[in-house]
Amino acid sequence: MASCVCAATTVSSPSYAIPLFTSPSSSSSSPTTTKFLTKQRWKTPLIETKTMRSKKSVVRATVSIEKETPEAERPETFLRGGDAATAAESLSVRARFEKMIREAQDSVCDAIEAADGGGKFKEDVWSRPGGGGGISRVLQDGVVWEKAGVNVSVVYGVMPPDAYRAAKGSADQKPGPVPFFAAGISSVLHPKNPHAPTLHFNYRYFETDAPKDAPGAPRQWWFGGGTDLTPAYIFEEDVKHFHSTQKRACDKFDPTFYPRFKKWCDDYFYIKHRGERRGLGGIFFDDLNDYDQEMLLSFATECANSVIPAYIPIIEKRKDTPFTDHQKAWQQLRRGRYVEFNLVYGRGTTFGLKTGGRIESILVSLPLTARWEYDHKPEEGSEEWKLLDACMNPKEWI
Amino acid sequence: MASCVCAATTVSSPSYAIPLFTSPSSSSSSPTTTKFLTKQRWKTPLIETKTMRSKKSVVRATVSIEKETPEAERPETFLRGGDAATAAESLSVRARFEKMIREAQDSVCDAIEAADGGGKFKEDVWSRPGGGGGISRVLQDGVVWEKAGVNVSVVYGVMPPDAYRAAKGSADQKPGPVPFFAAGISSVLHPKNPHAPTLHFNYRYFETDAPKDAPGAPRQWWFGGGTDLTPAYIFEEDVKHFHSTQKRACDKFDPTFYPRFKKWCDDYFYIKHRGERRGLGGIFFDDLNDYDQEMLLSFATECANSVIPAYIPIIEKRKDTPFTDHQKAWQQLRRGRYVEFNLVYGRGTTFGLKTGGRIESILVSLPLTARWEYDHKPEEGSEEWKLLDACMNPKEWI
Repeated sequence: MASCVCAATTVSSPSYAIPLFTSPSSSSSSPTTTKFLTKQRWKTPLIETKTMRSKKSVVRATVSIEKETPEAERPETFLRGGDAATAAESLSVRARFEKMIREAQDSVCDAIEAADGGGKFKEDVWSRPGGGGGISRVLQDGVVWEKAGVNVSVVYGVMPPDAYRAAKGSADQKPGPVPFFAAGISSVLHPKNPHAPTLHFNYRYFETDAPKDAPGAPRQWWFGGGTDLTPAYIFEEDVKHFHSTQKRACDKFDPTFYPRFKKWCDDYFYIKHRGERRGLGGIFFDDLNDYDQEMLLSFATECANSVIPAYIPIIEKRKDTPFTDHQKAWQQLRRGRYVEFNLVYGRGTTFGLKTGGRIESILVSLPLTARWEYDHKPEEGSEEWKLLDACMNPKEWI
Repeated sequence: MASCVCAATTVSSPSYAIPLFTSPSSSSSSPTTTKFLTKQRWKTPLIETKTMRSKKSVVRATVSIEKETPEAERPETFLRGGDAATAAESLSVRARFEKMIREAQDSVCDAIEAADGGGKFKEDVWSRPGGGGGISRVLQDGVVWEKAGVNVSVVYGVMPPDAYRAAKGSADQKPGPVPFFAAGISSVLHPKNPHAPTLHFNYRYFETDAPKDAPGAPRQWWFGGGTDLTPAYIFEEDVKHFHSTQKRACDKFDPTFYPRFKKWCDDYFYIKHRGERRGLGGIFFDDLNDYDQEMLLSFATECANSVIPAYIPIIEKRKDTPFTDHQKAWQQLRRGRYVEFNLVYGRGTTFGLKTGGRIESILVSLPLTARWEYDHKPEEGSEEWKLLDACMNPKEWI
């Protein structure tokens, strides 16, 4: 097992970082306005974010997270001792969410290794002294996938009282700093064959403690995540299958979820300077807390469990399809767009890079190889043009 | 000639955009705090930048630039009619700077084509109705270079009175909006052979008009730019030759220039999340106006004229050196770093992308191909390790 290059603060990337700095209704891809206090960067970094997440409000706040250390073995749980010690705590949403993402990581990695038929995941584990940690798994240069990353992480941090007061909408109390908990799974899977699509998924849960010096003040929580497909070529039956699987997962909980989260996905994965989406979408949601908490935990679980049935059948069908150099070059150009989105707009990536997160975990989302040609324009009506058109004008696939 | 995909506002990339949003003493790579008003994006975009450049002050300001249109032919000058009409105007610094960068574009492109021995530049020309325009030239998939872009641009815009008042340090006058002029040359040259280095250079001039309703208020101006080398492998004689040529150009004007601009370059091209510089540096300066204006015009000219003697001899020596797949893969990984710097930290790129500049001109700086491997670490003492070490710990080459 490789040793962990440990940097300060947030660990693994696109996943849990998001709740810390997106505004509640933000489905746009506007640039963040994060400021960083870089003193003591390698000790206890202070990250000043303008848009701490809170219901219908935007607050400037400071979040501090401990430095991480590598671990030789996976612990049973990354929760703090007290959190998992009692029978009641083991039934908490945070405990059950961690269990769910750890199981999802195992089952997705097993399915990827089985479908790849050659490549094996490499694992890096780390923890933080005060609780929390993560597991990064990467399969590189396999038979089917050129790069597949599946990360989980659990973070304990502290948000300042201002952010919490704004979150609960009262200004007359003066609670101390509010501890928070965030956990997530994040994955990007880049196959080699240009007919086989890239998949990204990411599910996360965020929770504050009830402040000790403000009796009766509520604990805040929310869910976020999504699954989206990025092919270089459109096979309509594949895209229909993928979206149908997302819709089925959504429909088990609320008939408004799929149309709403499908549009949110199209809006979020927007490469503004190109006028294109990164791919053909799927579902995306953030800051979800206006439903029953148990229902949303079940929903996130259902979504995570839908990854394999949504994706693997497409891979099985396309992984051995013959392709030309021209098709490979087009896939590489689309990979270039993937890099542009992740480095310029991806909230998890840009946040992680700027706060000094574990770089290799954050940038595992980038493809093994990418390409940029000057002024490339696919011929109108070609298969490449059809993909580009669908990225510029999102379609209803089902 | 390909038609121009014309988007609103700033044209060509890393070059002239920089004076519009860097603070005078900023050699750091901190994130910008630009806000964008996106209404009427394709008509007359308003770009609200927090850090309008002014001497020792940071001002929130609004810059508006017209939409560009493609041109079939290169005009004699991109200056507004009045600016170039009289003999006096043709001797103005702005006129002479445009002439200098146009000549530098021609001579660099000629030298690149001659050294390439096969590839030819493709040219796109555009202008703006109220004056200004640009010429993008790109050679792609040549014999020696995989991608070589050399762009010039001239921009007329308007900055609001607040920015100008702050620039001249008085608050008691109320001038109207202050017109500004910016011109620059910007180039990135990526060779194929991993032993042949990438070169970037960029020289720019910025000037405000004297405000008509504030008699006696001074015209503001400043120069910026630099030339830097990004090899995948260190040939010490090459790096020495490159830095010596930069030093010779600097020493003709001021013995403090080279050490100061060499350090500025090392500080600017810093990939903060990696703790690495993009390459082995060169010179970089910005917001330079505390010297004689004629002297700085001569200095910028000398620097631009030093590009060919600094770079072409290195290319001639390395372009046909045999290389292994391993060496090519390392070059590709370093290209990945180049992409990371340009998309995450490069001021011209990030500014251009967010303001809706001409995308193909802005992103011509990206390599044709790049690569990201998970957790890649060169073997200690290897040639790859030596390059990485020099990127992490900048050296004095001469």
